[in-house]
Amino acid sequence: MAPATITLALDAMGGDHAPDHVVRGAAIARERFPTVRYLLFGDERKIKPLLDKAPKIAALSEIRHTDEAIGDSDKPAQALRRGARSSMRLAIDAVRDNDAQGVVSAGNTGALMAMARFVLKTLPTIDRPAIVGLFPTVKSECTMLDLGANVECDANTLVQFAVMGSAFARTLLGIERPRVGLLNVGSEELKGHEEVRGAYQLLKDGDLPLEFIGYVEGSDIPAGTADVVVTDGFTGNVALKTAEGTARLYTNFLAKAFRRSLMSKLGYLLARPALKTLRARVDPRVYNGAMFVGLNGIVVKSHGSMDAMGFASAIGVAVDMVRGNISERIVADFKHFGAKTAPATVA
Amino acid sequence: MAPATITLALDAMGGDHAPDHVVRGAAIARERFPTVRYLLFGDERKIKPLLDKAPKIAALSEIRHTDEAIGDSDKPAQALRRGARSSMRLAIDAVRDNDAQGVVSAGNTGALMAMARFVLKTLPTIDRPAIVGLFPTVKSECTMLDLGANVECDANTLVQFAVMGSAFARTLLGIERPRVGLLNVGSEELKGHEEVRGAYQLLKDGDLPLEFIGYVEGSDIPAGTADVVVTDGFTGNVALKTAEGTARLYTNFLAKAFRRSLMSKLGYLLARPALKTLRARVDPRVYNGAMFVGLNGIVVKSHGSMDAMGFASAIGVAVDMVRGNISERIVADFKHFGAKTAPATVA
Repeated sequence: MAPATITLALDAMGGDHAPDHVVRGAAIARERFPTVRYLLFGDERKIKPLLDKAPKIAALSEIRHTDEAIGDSDKPAQALRRGARSSMRLAIDAVRDNDAQGVVSAGNTGALMAMARFVLKTLPTIDRPAIVGLFPTVKSECTMLDLGANVECDANTLVQFAVMGSAFARTLLGIERPRVGLLNVGSEELKGHEEVRGAYQLLKDGDLPLEFIGYVEGSDIPAGTADVVVTDGFTGNVALKTAEGTARLYTNFLAKAFRRSLMSKLGYLLARPALKTLRARVDPRVYNGAMFVGLNGIVVKSHGSMDAMGFASAIGVAVDMVRGNISERIVADFKHFGAKTAPATVA
Repeated sequence: MAPATITLALDAMGGDHAPDHVVRGAAIARERFPTVRYLLFGDERKIKPLLDKAPKIAALSEIRHTDEAIGDSDKPAQALRRGARSSMRLAIDAVRDNDAQGVVSAGNTGALMAMARFVLKTLPTIDRPAIVGLFPTVKSECTMLDLGANVECDANTLVQFAVMGSAFARTLLGIERPRVGLLNVGSEELKGHEEVRGAYQLLKDGDLPLEFIGYVEGSDIPAGTADVVVTDGFTGNVALKTAEGTARLYTNFLAKAFRRSLMSKLGYLLARPALKTLRARVDPRVYNGAMFVGLNGIVVKSHGSMDAMGFASAIGVAVDMVRGNISERIVADFKHFGAKTAPATVA
């Protein structure tokens, strides 16, 4: 059961605009989650003045002072060795010690993953944690993993991703039996690596609380063919960034088109309110907040360049995961899977 | 030297709209290439009536009749064994026999690759052919390979792709020293597979007629950071299709936004001429025509669902490759590379 009162540990020193966007992000999140409390890890001299200006969020927050912070260029191994007193590490420790139910950081991804894995450990039956995030689709949204934690993945790891991604979709999108697709290439004769083909067999034969729809292609991600798209961290990271870049390209072309003539400028003015809804649907801030799934604890990574609204979205992901008991779901789903696929005993 | 008169072999039976889009595509291409001649391989009973209605292109064309055609669902091995009299195979044979300088087909990709490789063989120093294509970028265009011919690639193969992609960019985009980037994931600690890291070292130390700019990420493809993006066929295919799908998603959202209110509909009418330029810049038909590089002959694959204008673009790619002597370029570039990286002899 999720606790009645949720407390999140925030790494107040991570991200390009820290600690400002962290405090203001919590203030924005308060409108949606008025009872969530925060532990703010970082430099009190910088955090305190911000809280003084935001009494409502100050009333829900507690500063845990530390002078140290992980830098953007710090290597994960470095962070592990020397970052024991860093704001990021202390925020993760708070989850391990049950002072908080989840942690949100906009800091260095590699360091966050390394420290979270070291401190929290993986869930039983999970070999490797993955990064999972949301994409906009023609229909609504889909979740995809791994977005970059594991460059190479064997068939079993991909199956674990399918289960974790499905638990994520059930929790965040409220889909009872998510349709899970395995990312592959199109041409019939080249049906993917051995790992992908192996995962296909395991998922096809498994009995899981998800609907395995087989292989999907890159174009199926924005098309919304699947609720969960499963792939290795290399391919997932490339797909995520290609999609983000293509959306920016399109926005760039669209802006140029509207500036082309007086008529098109006037057309833009008339269509502006409607175009705002377009922007809202592809706003990267809304899709901010990638979760590290597979750990003994909720860890959400906000994009380093995000503003307060983006950080508030990441807080939202963390709250939804805590409320949805995602870790328990993953463990339960796996037990189910193991039980059903174990060799049958003679009756 | 490229021949003064270019003849292309066209697989008239490949693609969803064959042979109609092939004949009409050649007619559109004639406006840009008035002297290019065509050998049309396929069912004379279907092709002849189309040519009768297009006397200008009929004067430049010759039908080579065959009753057989490769089906969309035929496996490559099947096509190789049983497709010796198919329109696709005979069109490829024409290139081997020097009856044509290049072949264009909108048929089954796997069958085309298998037969082209079997009939034409790879260029000296090239182990595996790749599929290369063009992407729109914020700046202009970039080329990317492999788009799906090789699911797994070692470091040497990736280096060969870099050289071939660079020759393609020099020929099609007219760039003297293309900037070549190696596709990778962003996070510092996870700098890609062993293969990618190996290719990085080889390209960094090599002396090639290209500028190696190191690693690029998915977002760099549409951003135009590199003129040539090198990756394995699995990742390249996923990136290509994710970009195509994201563009469709954006178009879908944009159309919905314009339909939202009377004002936005009016705005659309005013901006329509300008928005047409946007459509032209992302028109997939303009970017149609993926080339199989690394073979002893020019082989261009048109997308199966393309209309006549798309097929005309694919013909244009083939003509540009023949005129630019791409095969000779690749072989020459590789000799250069080999000479410079061979162990130095004592002076």
